[in-house]
Amino acid sequence: MNATQFAIPGIRLGTAAAGIKYPDRDDMVVIEVVEGASCAAVFTRNAFCAAPVQLAKKHLALRPPRYLLINSGNANAGTGDQGMQDAHACCRVLAETVACQPDQVLPFSTGVIGESLPVERIHDALPAAIDNLSTGSWETASRAILTTDTRPKLRSRHFEFEGVQVRLTGMAKGSGMICPDMATMLAYLATDLSISQALLQACLDDAVKPSFNSITVDGDTSTNDACVLMASGASTLAPLTERGSDLYKKFVDEVTELCMELARDIVRDGEGATKLVEILVQDAADEKEARRVAYTIAHSPLVKTALFASDPNWGRILAAVGRAGLAGFDIDRVEIWLDDTCIVRNGGRAAEYTEQAGASVMSRDEFTIRVMLGRGDMLARVATCDLSYDYVKINAEYRT
Amino acid sequence: MNATQFAIPGIRLGTAAAGIKYPDRDDMVVIEVVEGASCAAVFTRNAFCAAPVQLAKKHLALRPPRYLLINSGNANAGTGDQGMQDAHACCRVLAETVACQPDQVLPFSTGVIGESLPVERIHDALPAAIDNLSTGSWETASRAILTTDTRPKLRSRHFEFEGVQVRLTGMAKGSGMICPDMATMLAYLATDLSISQALLQACLDDAVKPSFNSITVDGDTSTNDACVLMASGASTLAPLTERGSDLYKKFVDEVTELCMELARDIVRDGEGATKLVEILVQDAADEKEARRVAYTIAHSPLVKTALFASDPNWGRILAAVGRAGLAGFDIDRVEIWLDDTCIVRNGGRAAEYTEQAGASVMSRDEFTIRVMLGRGDMLARVATCDLSYDYVKINAEYRT
Repeated sequence: MNATQFAIPGIRLGTAAAGIKYPDRDDMVVIEVVEGASCAAVFTRNAFCAAPVQLAKKHLALRPPRYLLINSGNANAGTGDQGMQDAHACCRVLAETVACQPDQVLPFSTGVIGESLPVERIHDALPAAIDNLSTGSWETASRAILTTDTRPKLRSRHFEFEGVQVRLTGMAKGSGMICPDMATMLAYLATDLSISQALLQACLDDAVKPSFNSITVDGDTSTNDACVLMASGASTLAPLTERGSDLYKKFVDEVTELCMELARDIVRDGEGATKLVEILVQDAADEKEARRVAYTIAHSPLVKTALFASDPNWGRILAAVGRAGLAGFDIDRVEIWLDDTCIVRNGGRAAEYTEQAGASVMSRDEFTIRVMLGRGDMLARVATCDLSYDYVKINAEYRT
Repeated sequence: MNATQFAIPGIRLGTAAAGIKYPDRDDMVVIEVVEGASCAAVFTRNAFCAAPVQLAKKHLALRPPRYLLINSGNANAGTGDQGMQDAHACCRVLAETVACQPDQVLPFSTGVIGESLPVERIHDALPAAIDNLSTGSWETASRAILTTDTRPKLRSRHFEFEGVQVRLTGMAKGSGMICPDMATMLAYLATDLSISQALLQACLDDAVKPSFNSITVDGDTSTNDACVLMASGASTLAPLTERGSDLYKKFVDEVTELCMELARDIVRDGEGATKLVEILVQDAADEKEARRVAYTIAHSPLVKTALFASDPNWGRILAAVGRAGLAGFDIDRVEIWLDDTCIVRNGGRAAEYTEQAGASVMSRDEFTIRVMLGRGDMLARVATCDLSYDYVKINAEYRT
C-alpha cells in the first residue's frame, strides 16, 4: 500500500526527532483530529498507570480531543507528581502552539519507566512535527512510536457501503510487556466515518477483546497501554448513530479485523519471538475458564521454550492445562491438536501420533495449539509467541 | 556432614542404575521404612497428575508404607491406562522381592512426561538396590533422584529434647517446573521420632506452606510433586501424640526449617538460575493478596531478566505490583526496598536512591525485594530465581 491508501481524510500526522532516548530517528508524533470528530479510547488497567494515561483519560472525559501527542523512549511512568506536571506541560505547550485548549490534547508516552520526561526537548521539537502534519504520514508515524519493536505495525482496510468507500487505518507499537488488560501499548486507529462518541466507544470495546486483549508476549501488562479510535466524519455517508444498523455491524467487524491484524503483528514482533502461536481452547464450560486455560498455556515458560525449540512436548502443554485450576476437571477428557495433528487424546498421547508429525507442525512460523476440554461448548483464543535466547538478551540488556 | 550424620535409624536407602534415561549413573532409589513407622505425604494439585502420584495417594490411604520406590528420568505422566498398570507393576515387583504387599509400596517417578516407563529395567535393577540398603546412603540417594538439577539437595538437623537427640534428614530434587502447589517435585524427609500418622501429617502440612509452597522457578506446577515425611519411631523418646506438646512444637519448627532449607536449595539450583531472590510483601490487607503480589513479581519474565542482568529496574517491579489485580489499590502508597536500599517511595523513585546503590544489591547472589503495600499488616514470602540464557537453553534442548 502506498501512503495515499493509509490516509484518512480529517486526520493529519506529523513527526519529529526530539532526541528523548534514541538518536537519529523520529520519536515524537502529533496527530491532528479535525474539529467535530469523535474519539474513543481504552486504557491499561494496571493500577500502576502512567501520568499521561491518567491525564488522557481525564481530558477525553471532558470533550473530544483535537490533538494527540505521542513520544517514544520514555514512559513517564513511576514519575510521581513531577510526571503529572510534565504530562500537563506537554499538553499546554502543544495547545499554545496550535491555539487550542490543553484539555483538547491527549498525551501518550512509551519507553523506559521511572525516568523524568525531558519536556524541554519535546517542546523544542513540536514546531517541526506540526509543520509536517499530513494525511500521508502514517508510515513515518508508525515508526516514530516504536521502542524495542523491530518493525512498524501499520494496517489499513477499506470497505464499501451504499457505494461509498469507508476508510480505516491503524498503527500500533508493542513488543515486550505485552499482556494487554484493556488494550495494548499504544494503538491508534482512524476512520473517515461520522459516528457518535458513544457508538464509537462501544465499537472499540467490542474490537479490543478478541484482538489486543487476547494476546500475550510475556504476561506483563504495561503501565501505558492505550488504544485510540478516531472517526473524522469526513465521509459522505450519513452519521452513524444506530447500534442495530447494517453499517455499524459492518464497521465493528472491520475494526475488529484491523485490531486482530495489528495484535498479531505485535505478537509476531514479540521480543525475541520466532513464531506466532494461536492457543485455541474449545469445549469449555464458559469463556472465562477457556481464557484461563489459554493464558496458562501461553504464559508457561516451559511451553514457550518448547515452542522455540520446535519440540512437540505435549506433556508441558497438558501440565499447564492441569494447573489452570479448573474445578472438577477431568484431564482424561482432554484432546490436544497441533494444527491438524492430534497429539493428546483421553489425557494421554494419541495412538496415531508420531513425533515427526508433531515436530513438523511446530517448525512452522505460525500454527495453532487447539485444546478441547470436553466440558461444554465455549471457546477462547489467545495469540502468543515463543521464549527464545533473544528474549533474555533484549530484557537483560535493555536499559543498561 | 558425613554419612553417619544423615542417618535415621529405621530408614534404609538403596540405589541402582536402571538405565531409564541417564547412562552411567544411579537413577533408582528404594527407601525401606521400618515396621511400625508413620508416614505423611503431600502431593501435587495439578489436575494432570501422574499415575505414580495417584497410586501413592491410594496406597498411603490404606496403610503405612514399608517401601518407597523412586525413579528419575521418566515421570510416568500422561501415560494413560498403561502408565497406571506400569506403576502397579513396579509396586508388585518390589513387593514380591521383599515379601510385603504391593499396597505397602509408594511409587514415585520424575523426569520426562509422556513416555512409557521401562518397567523391565526397573525390575532388573531392583535386586541391586535392595542389596545395598543402608542407613548411610542418603547422599547417593539424593543424587539418584536428580534430573535437570545440577547438584543434590540434602539437609540434616538434629535437636535435643529431654536429653535425647532427635534426628531429622531430608533430600529433595527439583530445578524446573517448579511452582509447587502442595509440595515440590520429590522431597523425602525422615526422623527417628515416634509420632502418630495424624500428627505427622499435620506437621508436614504446616511445614510445606512457607517452604515448598512458597517458591517458584518458572511458575509451572509439576505433575509429579510429592513430599514425604517418615517417622521411624527408633528414638527412645515416648511416642508423640499431643499437638500442644513442647516436643511437637519444636518438631514442627525443625521440619519447617528443614523444608525451608531444601526449598531454597531447589530455587538456588533453578534451571539457569544465577541468584536466589526472596520476595517479601508486607503491609498487605490479607495473606492472600500478599502472596498474589509476591507471585506476580516472582513470575514476571521482565523482573526475572532484570534480576539476571543485576539491573535495578524498579519500574518492572512496580508494574508487576500494579497488575496483580488488588481491589482499591493505591500505588502511591507503595514502598520497595532492595535489601537495605529504598528504591521506591510513594509510588515513585525514592529521593535518596541511586542506581549505584541498587545495582550493588542486585549483584549479590542472594537478596530480598521487599514490597510494602500500605494496606494492612499481613505478609508473604516467596523465593525465586532469575531468568537467564541457560533457562532457555536447558528447556529448549531438554528432551530433543
